[in-house]
Amino acid sequence: MKKHNFFAGPSVLPDVAIQNSIKAIDNFSDTGISLLSISHRSKEFQAVMDEAQALFKKLLDIPEGYHVLFLGGGASTQFYMVPFNLLEKKAGYLVTGEWAGKAFKEAKIFGEAIEVASSKDRNFNYIPQGYVIPSDADYFHITTNNTIYGTEIKEDIDSPVTLVADMSSDIFSRPVDVSKYGLIYGGAQKNLAPSGVTFVIVREDILGKVSRPIPTMINYNTHITKGSMFNTPPVLPIFTALETLRWLDNLGGVSQMQKINNEKATLLYDEIERNKLFMPTVPDAKDRSIMNICFVMNENYAELNDTFLKFASERGMVGLKGHRSVGGFRASTYNALPKESVEALVSCMKDFEAMH
Amino acid sequence: MKKHNFFAGPSVLPDVAIQNSIKAIDNFSDTGISLLSISHRSKEFQAVMDEAQALFKKLLDIPEGYHVLFLGGGASTQFYMVPFNLLEKKAGYLVTGEWAGKAFKEAKIFGEAIEVASSKDRNFNYIPQGYVIPSDADYFHITTNNTIYGTEIKEDIDSPVTLVADMSSDIFSRPVDVSKYGLIYGGAQKNLAPSGVTFVIVREDILGKVSRPIPTMINYNTHITKGSMFNTPPVLPIFTALETLRWLDNLGGVSQMQKINNEKATLLYDEIERNKLFMPTVPDAKDRSIMNICFVMNENYAELNDTFLKFASERGMVGLKGHRSVGGFRASTYNALPKESVEALVSCMKDFEAMH
Repeated sequence: MKKHNFFAGPSVLPDVAIQNSIKAIDNFSDTGISLLSISHRSKEFQAVMDEAQALFKKLLDIPEGYHVLFLGGGASTQFYMVPFNLLEKKAGYLVTGEWAGKAFKEAKIFGEAIEVASSKDRNFNYIPQGYVIPSDADYFHITTNNTIYGTEIKEDIDSPVTLVADMSSDIFSRPVDVSKYGLIYGGAQKNLAPSGVTFVIVREDILGKVSRPIPTMINYNTHITKGSMFNTPPVLPIFTALETLRWLDNLGGVSQMQKINNEKATLLYDEIERNKLFMPTVPDAKDRSIMNICFVMNENYAELNDTFLKFASERGMVGLKGHRSVGGFRASTYNALPKESVEALVSCMKDFEAMH
Repeated sequence: MKKHNFFAGPSVLPDVAIQNSIKAIDNFSDTGISLLSISHRSKEFQAVMDEAQALFKKLLDIPEGYHVLFLGGGASTQFYMVPFNLLEKKAGYLVTGEWAGKAFKEAKIFGEAIEVASSKDRNFNYIPQGYVIPSDADYFHITTNNTIYGTEIKEDIDSPVTLVADMSSDIFSRPVDVSKYGLIYGGAQKNLAPSGVTFVIVREDILGKVSRPIPTMINYNTHITKGSMFNTPPVLPIFTALETLRWLDNLGGVSQMQKINNEKATLLYDEIERNKLFMPTVPDAKDRSIMNICFVMNENYAELNDTFLKFASERGMVGLKGHRSVGGFRASTYNALPKESVEALVSCMKDFEAMH
């Protein structure tokens, strides 16, 4: 049975990226050697690294003065690497969910970390508005998409200080005005690659301004100087990322991707609103994520929660169970999720409604 | 043409580990989903993590009180993570090569780091003896195998203080008395897995003794508490590591592996000694690495260096060029390198000798 992969991450990747990864593991770039066994110093892998960085710059229209890095350790490593490199006295954090809170917690080790605004009062089901970013902060940190709670900052905000964004779960889902950010990072295992690689887009002029000594591996300048090859990089995840970027480029880039993502999200949110059994967890439509669509059973049907999960599972849908802190269901509709999977879920919801 | 893969890392892996990785990327554990797209929270991946940790413990006969972790960031991340967690006042380092030197450099950020001994005076072509480990050090750090220079500490040394070892390039090549170490770490991309995962074996009683605040991701206890799944782990490299461990277990474990490794190394070192064109870079046989066999042209034949590399390359041998700081040739003879590859190299050396 064809599976519909709604996992929140690691998650669905383009078929072509998976198939080309398999081919490269069998025989990488006609070397006669597996991608899993090739030296990262080989000219064939250097070509992969170069093209992946170039496509990152092309697809996101990244201006001069920025560098693209592929590191290990996950976005959780960036939670401390950002303040290690950037926090001299004070930093502001927008706390819009669990991951934003984790990033905020790490910053406190390095200096004064201010919670500029939070949506914790309503279990993170909205994006705060009308907050004031301290103009004396070294930077202001946001999490653009909140995977667990299904909210998203869908536009590039204005910040009087260096803007730092965790875009783990919505990178490449829409055009981004990179010039508004000092640093963008994310785990790649949602829209880009298998787990094991973290991307960083950093503007060079924000670095070198803190007084603390920085261990070599934590210093962004180390990786910039060495073209993201200071130490052995995660070769396979970077290769698969390149294949995903090529797929996205062939599709028409991030504007086209955004159009498709909006179509998929509209289809599902409309059904959640229409269907008497279900309701969305995020009340305000403008705050709803295009990447992680969270919904629950309507009050009168709460006892059907597990029955629906089982019903969907029998139709090949996996990863639909909501995070324990929200409950209900979460359909992750990342870039590579085919529209047919959303259509299949909508049909499933309609059929389930007819039965009850 | 069949390739003989002598890369120093990433490097040759067992065929079965590569083929089973391909199968899992096509359809992981009968889930109908690719290993590259499966949630790390799925029961199928949890089973991979559990078995990989259990096989680590079985194959290395790891005593109670130790934990096995699979982290991101490479051994270079351990260079600062070790002192972050363990260095309160003073640490001793044995500087036997470039990587040992890099680890030593990071420790200086955290406290008093002592170079207990070094072999830099002779371009790291020997293992220092007769040094005294300071008994008031928090730990003593060694690099058991020096990939670039072809030297190796082939026995478990006695240390009056907590012994920490980087075993990136010789883990699983021989039995290890783990009880002599407080912490063993390594990048997995030599004897275990593709790049992107770092193993850590740590005895729990050495942790929690430093006074500095430790960022969450850097704290070994974070990963111990969460069974090495605090954040999304590098899924594919851990899967391939498990396949390599199963291969090693089926082969008869590390004692059998050591026997095979010694046979391969003896074959090649004997030819280097016998062949009038070549000479080893490490004079003392007892210090010679079983994993990275370094040799150069004899003085009278120095001009044949590039000719030999080309000759070997035409016979399908890749990765033989020595590191720039040593020159000549380096044959990495990791666990998964078939004996036939060493025999092919020896034939190649004999044929080259006959021609000159």
